[in-house]
Amino acid sequence: MVMLRKKVKELVLIDRMAKVFKTADPLVVVSIGDDVAVVQGDQGKYLLYTCDMLVESVHFKKNENFEKIGYKAMAVSVSDIAAKGGIPRYALVSVGLPPKRVDRFIRGLMMGMKRCAKKFGFSIIGGDTNRSRHLVVDVFMAGEVEKKNLVLRSTAQVGDLIFVSGSLGGSLKHKHLDFTPRLPEARFLVKNFKINSMMDLSDGLGMDLNRLVRSSRVGALIFENKIPQSSDSLGINSALYDGEDFELLFTLKSREAFKLLSQIKNSKEFKFICIGRITDLFDGVRMIKNDCRMLEIPWRGFRHF
Amino acid sequence: MVMLRKKVKELVLIDRMAKVFKTADPLVVVSIGDDVAVVQGDQGKYLLYTCDMLVESVHFKKNENFEKIGYKAMAVSVSDIAAKGGIPRYALVSVGLPPKRVDRFIRGLMMGMKRCAKKFGFSIIGGDTNRSRHLVVDVFMAGEVEKKNLVLRSTAQVGDLIFVSGSLGGSLKHKHLDFTPRLPEARFLVKNFKINSMMDLSDGLGMDLNRLVRSSRVGALIFENKIPQSSDSLGINSALYDGEDFELLFTLKSREAFKLLSQIKNSKEFKFICIGRITDLFDGVRMIKNDCRMLEIPWRGFRHF
Repeated sequence: MVMLRKKVKELVLIDRMAKVFKTADPLVVVSIGDDVAVVQGDQGKYLLYTCDMLVESVHFKKNENFEKIGYKAMAVSVSDIAAKGGIPRYALVSVGLPPKRVDRFIRGLMMGMKRCAKKFGFSIIGGDTNRSRHLVVDVFMAGEVEKKNLVLRSTAQVGDLIFVSGSLGGSLKHKHLDFTPRLPEARFLVKNFKINSMMDLSDGLGMDLNRLVRSSRVGALIFENKIPQSSDSLGINSALYDGEDFELLFTLKSREAFKLLSQIKNSKEFKFICIGRITDLFDGVRMIKNDCRMLEIPWRGFRHF
Repeated sequence: MVMLRKKVKELVLIDRMAKVFKTADPLVVVSIGDDVAVVQGDQGKYLLYTCDMLVESVHFKKNENFEKIGYKAMAVSVSDIAAKGGIPRYALVSVGLPPKRVDRFIRGLMMGMKRCAKKFGFSIIGGDTNRSRHLVVDVFMAGEVEKKNLVLRSTAQVGDLIFVSGSLGGSLKHKHLDFTPRLPEARFLVKNFKINSMMDLSDGLGMDLNRLVRSSRVGALIFENKIPQSSDSLGINSALYDGEDFELLFTLKSREAFKLLSQIKNSKEFKFICIGRITDLFDGVRMIKNDCRMLEIPWRGFRHF
C-alpha cells in the first residue's frame, strides 16, 4: 500500500484534470487518466485519441538528431494506440520552433515523422507551426480498434499472469530515440488471445505496473530473475525505473498464457516474457528478489514534476 | 499578383509539409495546408481534426491571466471547426509547464478550458503534462459536420459576395484572450444558405483573404468604407493586419447574400457585413480606398517566422 500513499505530483495533476473535466457524454468510454481516450465509433469500432508532447532538454538534448526526434514524437503515440489493441490512422503535429532552426526542422523532423508514418501505415494530415524559444513537438494521433479487441489497463484480474514484450532498462543510452512500437505484437495478441489488461511501458516497469494494478484495483507479484534486462541495463533498478522502454505490459489468464507461449515457442518475430502474476489489491506491487527476499516496489520512476 | 510572389516563410513551411506528408488514403478529404483536416466519417458525416499551439511570450505574456489563456487555447480550435461549418466534440490538451507554476495552472488554465467546453458543448477527454521552461499549451480538437454542410476555404467562386461576421482590428488590446468563436453564426449560415467558402480570421483580413483567394484560385475586391472597424482599431491598417479577430470570413452568391441580409435585418443575434466581391484570379486582392484609389493588399500580417 506504500505506493498508494505516495504523492506523485504528475498523477495528482492528472487526477485533478480528470475531476475538473469530467464529461457526461455517453459516447466517451475512457477519458482523462489513461494514455488514450476511447470514444464510441460506428460499425463496431472505437475511436482512439492520444497526444504526446516532447520538449527540448526534457525529452531530448538540444543537439540531438532531428530525424530521430521526429520519429520518436510519432512513435510514442503509435505505442499508446498499440497498447489499446488498436491501429494508428491519422496524426496531426504542432511544432514550436526556434526561428534559427526552421530549416533543420524541415530536413530532419519531417523525415523522421514520415519514416514512422510509412512504417506503421498512418497519415499525417495536419499541423501547426509556431515560434518558440526552444523546440517543442506535440503529436496528436487518432486510431481505431474493433470493439472486441479494445484492451484497457484497468481490467487486470487476480490470478492473471503478467508479461512484457521485450527487455527493459538503459533505454536512454540509445534505444529511446529509435525504438520500435510494439504494434504488430499488440495486434497479434488482441486478435488471438483474451488479453485482460495492457499498457505500454513509458515510465519504467516499477511505476507503470503500479499504475496498472492501481487502476485495476489489484496487486502484483513479480520475480527479479524473470525480468528481462537489455544489454544497456545497469541492473535490476535500471530495468525497473529507467523508463522509455516502450515495451508492452499485459496480463492474461494462465490458460490463455500457456496457449500464447506454445504458439510463439518457435517464433522469431515475437518474444513475450512472463514476469509474475496479478494478486490481491492489498498486496501492492512486490518483487521476489534473487536472494528470495520480498521487496515492495514503490511508485517511482521518471517524474515530470 | 504581388502576394503570390511574396515569400512568407510559414506558408513555405506548410507547403513543404503538405508535400512531404502527402497521403494516398482515400478517406482524407482535406489534409495539411488548411486549418482543419477533413476525413470521411460514417452516417453522412465528416470528421474534423485541428490543433493549435499557444506559446508563452509569442501568443501571450508571461503574467497573463491563466484562466483566459486556457479559454483562448480551446476557443481558437472551436473557431477553426466552426469555420468549416462543423461542431466541436472532443478536445485533448498537451501542456508544457514550468514546474514552479503547476498550481497556478490547475486553478487557472483548467477553469478557462472548462468554461469554453461548457459554452460550446464539447468534452475534454485527454491530455499530456510535461515539464518545460516556458508555458506551452497545445489543444487538439475533433469535431464533425454533416457532409452537406462542410465549407472549405478553397471553393470561393467569381462573383461571390464577401462577408465578415463582425468588426476587425485592435484585438490584441483586449479581445484576443476573450473572444467568442462564431459557432452559432457559422451553423446558422451553413444550415440556411449555400455558403461557397469560409475561414476564420486569425492572421488579419489582409493575409487571410489572400489565403482564401489563393486556395480558391480567384481574386477579390474589397471596399475600405465597408470594412467594419472595432472600437480598438487604430485605422484601416489595424483592421487589415492586426490579426486575432476570430471573425468568420465567407463568400456566397449574391442571390444567397440578399436572402441572408433580409433574414437578419432585424436580428439582434447575428451581424454579417458585406465587404466586397470575388473577382478573377489575376486581380489578386485589391481594395477601393475612401478616396477612390485602388490599392493592392499584399500578403502580410502576423508572421511566425
